[in-house]
Amino acid sequence: MGIRVTVWGENVHEQKNKVVAGIYPLTMHGTIAKALKEAGIDASTVTLQDAEHGLTPEKLAATDVLIWWGHCAHGDVEDAIVERVCDAVWGGMGIIFLHSAHFSKPFKRLMGAPCNLSWREAGERERLWVTSRQHPIAAGLPDHFELEYEEMYGEPFGVPEPLETVFVSWFAGGEVFRSGLTYKRGAGNIFYFRPGHETYPTYHDANVQRVILNAVNWAYNPNKRIADPNHAPNVPVDKALEPIVERGPRLHHDGEEGYR
Amino acid sequence: MGIRVTVWGENVHEQKNKVVAGIYPLTMHGTIAKALKEAGIDASTVTLQDAEHGLTPEKLAATDVLIWWGHCAHGDVEDAIVERVCDAVWGGMGIIFLHSAHFSKPFKRLMGAPCNLSWREAGERERLWVTSRQHPIAAGLPDHFELEYEEMYGEPFGVPEPLETVFVSWFAGGEVFRSGLTYKRGAGNIFYFRPGHETYPTYHDANVQRVILNAVNWAYNPNKRIADPNHAPNVPVDKALEPIVERGPRLHHDGEEGYR
Amino acid sequence: MGIRVTVWGENVHEQKNKVVAGIYPLTMHGTIAKALKEAGIDASTVTLQDAEHGLTPEKLAATDVLIWWGHCAHGDVEDAIVERVCDAVWGGMGIIFLHSAHFSKPFKRLMGAPCNLSWREAGERERLWVTSRQHPIAAGLPDHFELEYEEMYGEPFGVPEPLETVFVSWFAGGEVFRSGLTYKRGAGNIFYFRPGHETYPTYHDANVQRVILNAVNWAYNPNKRIADPNHAPNVPVDKALEPIVERGPRLHHDGEEGYR
Amino acid sequence: MGIRVTVWGENVHEQKNKVVAGIYPLTMHGTIAKALKEAGIDASTVTLQDAEHGLTPEKLAATDVLIWWGHCAHGDVEDAIVERVCDAVWGGMGIIFLHSAHFSKPFKRLMGAPCNLSWREAGERERLWVTSRQHPIAAGLPDHFELEYEEMYGEPFGVPEPLETVFVSWFAGGEVFRSGLTYKRGAGNIFYFRPGHETYPTYHDANVQRVILNAVNWAYNPNKRIADPNHAPNVPVDKALEPIVERGPRLHHDGEEGYR
Repeated sequence: MGIRVTVWGENVHEQKNKVVAGIYPLTMHGTIAKALKEAGIDASTVTLQDAEHGLTPEKLAATDVLIWWGHCAHGDVEDAIVERVCDAVWGGMGIIFLHSAHFSKPFKRLMGAPCNLSWREAGERERLWVTSRQHPIAAGLPDHFELEYEEMYGEPFGVPEPLETVFVSWFAGGEVFRSGLTYKRGAGNIFYFRPGHETYPTYHDANVQRVILNAVNWAYNPNKRIADPNHAPNVPVDKALEPIVERGPRLHHDGEEGYR
Repeated sequence: MGIRVTVWGENVHEQKNKVVAGIYPLTMHGTIAKALKEAGIDASTVTLQDAEHGLTPEKLAATDVLIWWGHCAHGDVEDAIVERVCDAVWGGMGIIFLHSAHFSKPFKRLMGAPCNLSWREAGERERLWVTSRQHPIAAGLPDHFELEYEEMYGEPFGVPEPLETVFVSWFAGGEVFRSGLTYKRGAGNIFYFRPGHETYPTYHDANVQRVILNAVNWAYNPNKRIADPNHAPNVPVDKALEPIVERGPRLHHDGEEGYR
Repeated sequence: MGIRVTVWGENVHEQKNKVVAGIYPLTMHGTIAKALKEAGIDASTVTLQDAEHGLTPEKLAATDVLIWWGHCAHGDVEDAIVERVCDAVWGGMGIIFLHSAHFSKPFKRLMGAPCNLSWREAGERERLWVTSRQHPIAAGLPDHFELEYEEMYGEPFGVPEPLETVFVSWFAGGEVFRSGLTYKRGAGNIFYFRPGHETYPTYHDANVQRVILNAVNWAYNPNKRIADPNHAPNVPVDKALEPIVERGPRLHHDGEEGYR
Repeated sequence: MGIRVTVWGENVHEQKNKVVAGIYPLTMHGTIAKALKEAGIDASTVTLQDAEHGLTPEKLAATDVLIWWGHCAHGDVEDAIVERVCDAVWGGMGIIFLHSAHFSKPFKRLMGAPCNLSWREAGERERLWVTSRQHPIAAGLPDHFELEYEEMYGEPFGVPEPLETVFVSWFAGGEVFRSGLTYKRGAGNIFYFRPGHETYPTYHDANVQRVILNAVNWAYNPNKRIADPNHAPNVPVDKALEPIVERGPRLHHDGEEGYR
């Protein structure tokens, strides 16, 4: 059985904007899922408009890697669903954030940082350079590749120092951007990938599709999902691994839960 | 003028629990502030019970480094104050989280992770080992030091991989814990330091006081606080650093704010 | 075809010391290789005493992951072979250093650091704690496991901050040690794993064997080995990706190599 | 007393090449030292041609931060001096590597990696972007600054993942480069800073001088230098911090040194 990927799409501009609908007749999430399916991945799609945004506990339990694209409706995502997604990540679900998802609620929640940047929508040339040779996410790619039409995102990018910087982008207008960054939160692998403005055909690009496929394979954690990733177990004195004797005063009674 | 430190105390057990009140007649935050003042730091205290928990915009603007101790009342801290604290950190305020603040709202918010651990309240011996030699936070300390009575915190500690691991603890009952961890979020330096259960005299210990003083100096960022650390500026085409021509369709109108 | 692993053994104490020979009748490297073979890995062994220490260019080219155990004869390893091994790592070969290999030439060469530690040979209890939950190298392991008889290694461990800390050890005598650390140098994945003093039966332990097997899978880079990982190509002006005009004085003539 | 900085200059092109001599009548190292002195730093210079390359044990003991610039004569630096420099770094001396020092012996030795890159000498525009806001090394700098004439260095840059990426460069010819990287090896802070090709007036630039001054302050470790940063002390059983009894066979005799 292939890796089970759920592609989450905001699905607003595809419905309201003729340019976007024209470039992505299958929607953006549909285009991404189609490319993954052709590569043997068990990919499905859900959208903001679905009940619980399509992210029921059952769906998340059946998702190995979640891909997130959002832009104009970040605020419409319910906080309870964001927490559910984070719990799944902490338990071991991989997650890939694309482009304007830098300002999505789950990304900001997982980063603990502003996630801001500078930007310009001018259809300019972007060139992505691989900065970590032979990294699994860069497998099969040349040392650099170009996207002739893209939105510019510029540094400083308000994210924590990553585990690894995989791509850095050059823009025709003079900016640079760390375009591919890896993180781990709890047991979950996280990848941020910059390209993908909705008015350009970025997700039809073979190199971009390759990066997303590679990132799915990289983010997938075959270990069993942690049931309660927030559990903070008390270890009673008589279960200590080395013999110890209780000493001094204490706050908690036997069998009591810790404070939260 | 010295570094301006605000010590935030939950101030519940000092008022309700005779053991805690007996060990810390000046309260825990008061004890920490006193030690810092004796070392030349401009330290003050605020508590959960103060209006806005003592963390008004003016107070945060006048705070170079915030120290946070909380345990049984994490849930009573208002979310709006938590966001205000995070904004200050992202703008450049240093912050030090002590002991049970691992489950405080601002720490969890800044980590983006579960921050869980195992624990045992048995007054057992803790020995902290320096893992990063000559790190500024370990300045003047021996290679290891002991706290004869402490609560145990055990791995796995559900935090992101730190910038640097400065201390690792050994516990008599058989556990280990990464006890001193550095992070950066936005422009703010963050240090987590494990010791400090309220029923033991930890904050009277000279080595512990030394670590906190060192961490204050390390976390202090003399650069000007960033006014709006969440700002995501648009760079118009005619202000681009290199001459470019706008191409292709676009979503945004001139002068429009980006989506959030 | 399975992953091709070469286990490098110093092979001195197995030949000279009756205790070691008694515990490891197959030698230490032979014992490790046998366990890997039983798990489906294509494992072979070479030793210090082989011509070129068994690490000919052909052998390294046919090695996906190299495992290194050495102790009393680090100085006998030829520098030219060390450089060859490092070139292979930089080109994408994985490498796992075990126990006293912390002072081996290739480890010190790849770390760029002293790699020192404190130590005690007393057959004391070691307990390894997983610090990165569900990390591929910890797959299938419990949160902790014990080795009843081991040599102690204590902090500070003079290595660079790792990509990730996977294990931390507790010792009965009161020390701690970061026992499982990941690094990347060039395109090569590196794992250091602490246990394995030759007078104890550590490599017969199922959990230890599991870690080594997991680390082999983690370190394996399926991408093509980089032919010359030290190449520093000149990009002539007329091959620049964006049109530029040569300006100002220069040192180098057309087609000249850079200085080294 | 100010921080004691030693600027090491290769001092070859200043003597042999009229263009370089014309731009740097005080030599490159002399120009850098002069700017530091004007900022209150206790800066001196030494060169490749000095006895022991100017890096006697006494000089290193009296150096808080060493700055290294070399290019065409990396191979002329004696290996014994390289090891002496690394020992000083491991003991706590800060070190800053400039531009073509990416291929210097001490940088390669401390990185444990190929340190290669692509390059082009065409006097093209470089723009450095700050990627870590309010980092001490970027103090007082704007979000970006330009060098109108520089040599291009392009990714992939064959160095280990840094502690922090402080600058990323944009080049007119289409490349990007991680231009400011921090590391720690042993107790020593390390900063790599890209700009400074000898045929351009880079070290006369106020922003570049500011970065070097900031880096000196950042790299300076006021803690006492570690006398022997390679020491690996044995801890005898009777000196163990917790009472243990020696068990099992052992290799080493009482008081014996460990193997190296």
